[in-house]
Amino acid sequence: MTKIPHRLYLTEDQMPQRWFNLRSAMAEQPDPMLHPATLQPLGVDDLAPIFCTELAKQELDGATEFIDIPEEIQEVYKMYRPSPLIRAYNLERALGTPARIYYKFEGNNTSGSHKLNSAVAQAYYAKMQGLTGVTTETGAGQWGTALSEACSYFGLTCDVFMVKCSYEQKPFRKAVMGVFDADVTPSPSNLTEVGRKILAENPGTTGSLGCAISEAVEAAVGSGGKKRYVLGSVLNQVLLHQSIIGLESKIAMEQLGEYPDVVVGCAGGGSNLGGLIAPFMADKLKGVKNPRIVAVEPASCPSLTRGKYAYDFCDTGRVTPLARMYTLGCGFIPSASHAGGLRYHGMSPVLSKLYHDGHMEAVAYEQTRVFEAAVLFAKQETILPAPESAHAIRGAIDEALKCKESGEAKTILFGLTGTGYFDMTAYENYLTGKMTDHIPTDEELQKGFDSLPDIPQNKGI
Amino acid sequence: MTKIPHRLYLTEDQMPQRWFNLRSAMAEQPDPMLHPATLQPLGVDDLAPIFCTELAKQELDGATEFIDIPEEIQEVYKMYRPSPLIRAYNLERALGTPARIYYKFEGNNTSGSHKLNSAVAQAYYAKMQGLTGVTTETGAGQWGTALSEACSYFGLTCDVFMVKCSYEQKPFRKAVMGVFDADVTPSPSNLTEVGRKILAENPGTTGSLGCAISEAVEAAVGSGGKKRYVLGSVLNQVLLHQSIIGLESKIAMEQLGEYPDVVVGCAGGGSNLGGLIAPFMADKLKGVKNPRIVAVEPASCPSLTRGKYAYDFCDTGRVTPLARMYTLGCGFIPSASHAGGLRYHGMSPVLSKLYHDGHMEAVAYEQTRVFEAAVLFAKQETILPAPESAHAIRGAIDEALKCKESGEAKTILFGLTGTGYFDMTAYENYLTGKMTDHIPTDEELQKGFDSLPDIPQNKGI
Repeated sequence: MTKIPHRLYLTEDQMPQRWFNLRSAMAEQPDPMLHPATLQPLGVDDLAPIFCTELAKQELDGATEFIDIPEEIQEVYKMYRPSPLIRAYNLERALGTPARIYYKFEGNNTSGSHKLNSAVAQAYYAKMQGLTGVTTETGAGQWGTALSEACSYFGLTCDVFMVKCSYEQKPFRKAVMGVFDADVTPSPSNLTEVGRKILAENPGTTGSLGCAISEAVEAAVGSGGKKRYVLGSVLNQVLLHQSIIGLESKIAMEQLGEYPDVVVGCAGGGSNLGGLIAPFMADKLKGVKNPRIVAVEPASCPSLTRGKYAYDFCDTGRVTPLARMYTLGCGFIPSASHAGGLRYHGMSPVLSKLYHDGHMEAVAYEQTRVFEAAVLFAKQETILPAPESAHAIRGAIDEALKCKESGEAKTILFGLTGTGYFDMTAYENYLTGKMTDHIPTDEELQKGFDSLPDIPQNKGI
Repeated sequence: MTKIPHRLYLTEDQMPQRWFNLRSAMAEQPDPMLHPATLQPLGVDDLAPIFCTELAKQELDGATEFIDIPEEIQEVYKMYRPSPLIRAYNLERALGTPARIYYKFEGNNTSGSHKLNSAVAQAYYAKMQGLTGVTTETGAGQWGTALSEACSYFGLTCDVFMVKCSYEQKPFRKAVMGVFDADVTPSPSNLTEVGRKILAENPGTTGSLGCAISEAVEAAVGSGGKKRYVLGSVLNQVLLHQSIIGLESKIAMEQLGEYPDVVVGCAGGGSNLGGLIAPFMADKLKGVKNPRIVAVEPASCPSLTRGKYAYDFCDTGRVTPLARMYTLGCGFIPSASHAGGLRYHGMSPVLSKLYHDGHMEAVAYEQTRVFEAAVLFAKQETILPAPESAHAIRGAIDEALKCKESGEAKTILFGLTGTGYFDMTAYENYLTGKMTDHIPTDEELQKGFDSLPDIPQNKGI
């Protein structure tokens, strides 16, 4: 048998030309998004003032199995894709595990993460619709960077509301977005009504993703129809675009004669996890294969492991539609001590449904254990991982250590979503022993749950 | 004809297993390094207290054409190589040039640059010799990061003297090195005699690469034989290791049916340029092909375009051997306004000889023009280039624009040595109009030339 190479890159003609819609493989669909005023399921017309029309259609389309990737998007994908599937020989050796560990590395582009996969798609559809620009929020900054890059490519303006604590902790993220001519504002800001309201109520707030979303939505809706709002995670459309990760991974593993026993991904809003697992989860739902699917989340923002499956707003300002998802409550704000992303109060409705129905596992880690894994990984694999990605590394390492104990040579696939070059403050805190963990108390969680909308659909939750 | 893909990655079995020694193709060898006290050509024994023995041999070996890459080094190369050869379709379109532009991208590893290619080799030989660690200097920080990474892999300590202005401008570079357990000291420091002397003479100095070299050499020589000094550029051995860049490029271009009409690389000490051009320059020297070879350097540190071809110290403290090279004088310190690397006073003796004999061209650019190219490139090619690398981009763009004028569809190959994630301060200065250019006056240059050693070999220079 030929030795499996360290890195496998598909050739251009092997790259997927269609996105895969995981919902099409689900016997039961996720519950529909509801209009916050009428509590009725949303149609394309309801979404059109917020989202680009084509994206609104994708958002609501649970039936179509494959959606062609427009050629213009494929052209951009070819600029930085295919991403490599890497065999973690060194990590395996360092752990002394019989497991075979693979990871799909999405950090090889300026945005430093997988976020560009959906940013390119969303910017493209905005351009096709004749819009002048888009608005968005960003937390750790990867989504904002990716969107800036995509907008610059397609000639759109890009207004980014950046969670204030990230804005202050990561001045260089703003500079990268500046290279791509994006307009970056710390959130909450005085530019929007919702921002002014949040600032008035809580002047010292460091912001949250939910709050930045509220501001970005308001900015889009108030643009006189010239702009739309775009989001880097949570939404069905984002998972659709991110399916390119899983599709490439599956083709590459097939070329190696491999199929994962376990697929591990980090989970904030679910963009990477949903994309990575898509074809494998479909196999599982169809009974063709039976991989374990493991979501890894931070213990400081544990939406899957400690959240409620309820209808909730996607934002803090309570202006978005309601989605049924695992959530800590739209009023939940994770501890400021938590580094990096994965700070979102909710979780993709698709993933929430799959988790609720028992097709997926979830595990939560404290950040010091996550950074321990990040440093080990960096030393072994010549990639400095983003803190978000390091959650998946931690999960994969622990699966590999279980194999060491049991002697099983399982095949583990995990998603390495991006690089940590803009997270050195967090690394430094970890290396100098200054990093602390914060696990929310039950009381803190209850405070978040109290912010869940009081609607009939949430009775008894 | 099949369309040329955006990115070509060699497979593992296509990767070179031997380094190529460009000196073996030179009819006339570079002048030998001289002992600073005796002014006699150096032998392995002279170099052994400073360099690892195997590396000292490589340094002095101008004859051997190919040197096998030890298997352990090949194993590490496979963790982050082959690097992609990328066709810059978008950049070509943006420029409207008939030229075909290719670049070899070396930034896909934690060190963010090509420097890892030689760091791995030097750390390996140090380990094989039974040393406990190595000492080095770093300017922009890429070499220090690469060496830290390599030392961590092979279990060696790594003492890095980092040019003070970089240390202060790039705190996160230090943090990355910290991930790999390196010991980083701003230079000049109080840890060495030469550092204390320089500080006493010029307490406000922001340091220089030459000065950091002096400190690192002293720290190695004073280690009781347990450590050796390693250098990331200038040396013959470094160019040998970096030949992997050119060898991979040539194989990849052959697969595409291409051969470069022009090869462009940035030039600080010459590590990337020497590696990139090696097989193409050999073709030229042998008369097989006739590519133009263009070195691009900063106008603020113009060793090739305005320096003297003379014997000079490799460091500011005047403790190293003497090398005949294009140099601004070991006392030359570039303006603090100059961003990024390429701050070295001299140039690889191999490249200096080739330039002196007319086999290579050189051009110098002001940094604002370099950053203009960097931003254009980032927008078109989804890679945020390092300022050093952006010199090559500027050079390649100008070659492509010449093609636009003449209508010639030339094939241009340039080296994209690394990413600019740690250079956002410089980007921000450029984007906000705060970046200034400094071209040394003739008087400033003369001051540097006055520091050239007053030895018989330099008479009449």
